[in-house]
This record gives sequence, C-alpha cells and structure tokens, in this order.
Amino acid sequence: MSEPRLVEVRRNVLKQNDVIARGLRERFREAGVFVVSLVSSPGSGKTMFLERTLTELQPRYRVAALVGDLATENDALRLARSKAPVKQITTGTLCHLEASMVENALQEWELQQMDFLFIENVGNLVCPSSYDLGENLRLVLMSVTEGEDKPLKYPTIFNTADVAVITKNELAQAVEFDWQAARQNIESVRPGMKIFRLSAKTGAGMEEYLTFLIQQRDEQRAAALGA
Amino acid sequence: MSEPRLVEVRRNVLKQNDVIARGLRERFREAGVFVVSLVSSPGSGKTMFLERTLTELQPRYRVAALVGDLATENDALRLARSKAPVKQITTGTLCHLEASMVENALQEWELQQMDFLFIENVGNLVCPSSYDLGENLRLVLMSVTEGEDKPLKYPTIFNTADVAVITKNELAQAVEFDWQAARQNIESVRPGMKIFRLSAKTGAGMEEYLTFLIQQRDEQRAAALGA
Repeated sequence: MSEPRLVEVRRNVLKQNDVIARGLRERFREAGVFVVSLVSSPGSGKTMFLERTLTELQPRYRVAALVGDLATENDALRLARSKAPVKQITTGTLCHLEASMVENALQEWELQQMDFLFIENVGNLVCPSSYDLGENLRLVLMSVTEGEDKPLKYPTIFNTADVAVITKNELAQAVEFDWQAARQNIESVRPGMKIFRLSAKTGAGMEEYLTFLIQQRDEQRAAALGA
Repeated sequence: MSEPRLVEVRRNVLKQNDVIARGLRERFREAGVFVVSLVSSPGSGKTMFLERTLTELQPRYRVAALVGDLATENDALRLARSKAPVKQITTGTLCHLEASMVENALQEWELQQMDFLFIENVGNLVCPSSYDLGENLRLVLMSVTEGEDKPLKYPTIFNTADVAVITKNELAQAVEFDWQAARQNIESVRPGMKIFRLSAKTGAGMEEYLTFLIQQRDEQRAAALGA
C-alpha cells in the first residue's frame, strides 16, 4: 500500500496551503475586507443563498464573490444578477478550493475596494474541510431536505466551520424536518455552534443572519484598528 | 508545488485499486452475485432508497448491503430494519470507498449466499468517481431538491455511472423541479443514459427500477453461464 506516502505528500500540500492562507488573511486584514467562505454538499442552496446575501448587502456595502466548481460558469452567471463582481474558479477534478486558487483569482481585484468578499467552495462535505482559505468566517450550510443526521456523518466539516446555516426552510414542513434533532446533532459535534435557520427563497431569517455578518465585520475591524 | 508528485502517488493508489476491483468482479461473477453501487451527494436519499430496495427485493432474492460513511453506524442501523445483512464501513476522513475496503468487509460473508449485493458509497459527488469497486452497475442518485444543474457541475461522476436515479419525486412540485432541464443536462453529459424518476417515500417508480435491476442481473448471469 502506498497510502502512507500519499498521506505524507498530502501533508506537504496542506502545509503549503496554510502558508498561502496566512498571507491571504494578512492581506484581507490590511485591506479591511471581511471574508466569508461557504461550504456545503451539492444542492444545499449555496448559490441562491449567496445571491440573496450579495443583493441585500449591496446597497450598503461593497461586496464581491469567488465561486468554485469542478466545471461550468453557471454559478458566476447566476450570482452576476446581483450586480456584484463575481469570478468563477473551475477546479477540474479537484473537490475543494485551495488558498493558491483564491490568491490567483484575486490578482486583478483591488481588495481595498471591498467590504465583504464571499468565497463559495465546491459542493462537498469532506474535501474543503482541511483547506484554510484565509477567511474570517466559515459557514457550513445544510438544507432541511438533506436530513438531520448530516452533522454526525460529516463531523470534520462542522468542526472546521464557525457557523451553521440551515437552508431551504420553506420546505421544512414538506420534508418533516426535525429541528430539535438537527440542533442536537450540531450541538453534539460542535457545542455552542451558532446556528441560523433561514430561507433564501422567502427571505425569512435573512435579516438576523445579515445583522450577524455586519456585526462580525465591525468587531474584526475594531480589533484590527486597535491592534 | 508538490502537486505533480501528489498526482503520481494518487495514480499508483488508483492502479492498486483497479487490481483489487478486478479480483472482486471476478469473485462476484463466480459466486453469481449481482453488485450495484450507489453514489450521490450527502442527503440525496441513498439510504431510504436502499432500504426500500432491500425490503422489496427481500421476499424473492437474497440481498445484502455494505454502506460507507466517514463516521457513525446510523445507516447500517437504518438498513438493518429491512432484515437484510448489512455492514457499515467507516472511512474516517476518506471521502470515498476503495476496493480494498469492500474486500475486507466481505471477508466473513459467503458471496454464494447472495443474489444482490448493494454498496452505498460515502455521500460525495466527486471522490468516488475514480474508484472501481468491482460492481456490475453504478447508480448515481440526484434528488429533485438539489437542482437540475448537478450533472453539468459534476460531469465525472455522471460519466462513470451507468444509470441515473432522480429521487424524492414527492417533492418535485414543491421545489418546482424542471424535469426537462434535468434530463437535458444528463443527456448532454452522458448521451443515452438510462434515467429513473422515483420516490422511495411513496414507492412511485420503484417497480420499474426493480424490474430493470432484476433484468440486468438475469442478463449478466446468462452471459456468465454462456461464457
């Protein structure tokens, strides 16, 4: 089995990624941009949620987004409807974004011109967990249609995220979503984790989440200026 | 960048996997067991679909299942309700099953005692695509709640699967699922791909799919005996 060698090489890749991510985080801080990444399984509604986020923040803040997919520019086209600058990163066969891809994608952008930068990762509940992208906040999304057990089955991604967002709440009744069970499962994997329940379709719950984002950005800026 | 070395090592792992998978396929053929694997994103309803499949085949066929997850034995417990022999494979941080894991899990089982063996892969639309498990048929599942664009965004997994199964059809109306678009997207990635639309919850569409499975098994057995 060449498995141990694979592990060793992967460790080097991760180490390199961490170095680049650290550099990114420093640049974000200096530019005063608050960076939020989104991870979830495919089809949990990341893009619709992000489109709504961009659209609602847009009047008051300068927002931009990077969006990762194996193939297609579909998400960038969808997000462009929000009028925010959006760039697609296609990863080919890779199931996650890496810090170097974010760094490359940002080359032509002025970070100083942004208040918020969103990074939508490739739809995957496993691969993205080990890759730091220099973000300030990582959201893990889970739609009510996926079932309440996902935190137990994918503990690593919940552990590396800061906030859980339960999406597609307009379908909660139709799928008999058990909110207590979902919350308990998240709690058991990540005690005290902040959770938002919302519907990007109807807009219910968006306000509370956006207020939280803005607060987080303000706190981070205050800390950066105080430091 | 150590990326090229990573690719090289991964190629060796895949080569090893293929050798083991070939051995498995040969053993399956000799034992006369028809092996079906299931891949999909997390939360697309693999386990409920498999539970219904096992339960409905059970009266007429000897069925068994292996089920892969990063963590928990939940799925094995759920599937055990079908009364079929079920074994859980936990992969830790690995986002796919490998042929060697299937081989290990089968050690205590008599393949000759089975007509159908189902292998539920880890919920992931990327990682499992390159790993042959020696199966006769690979199904890729996609729930109506995930959106019609998944085949375009995850072409590799659709390309390595034999049959597409659209699940959770009881929710099609609630999510305004566009069946024509979904079919066109599958067609554009994999022309001529067989597609089933069904609901494991209501049972609609299950009969047609089960008839197909049985037919496939009969054909494969006839070919094996004729050879």
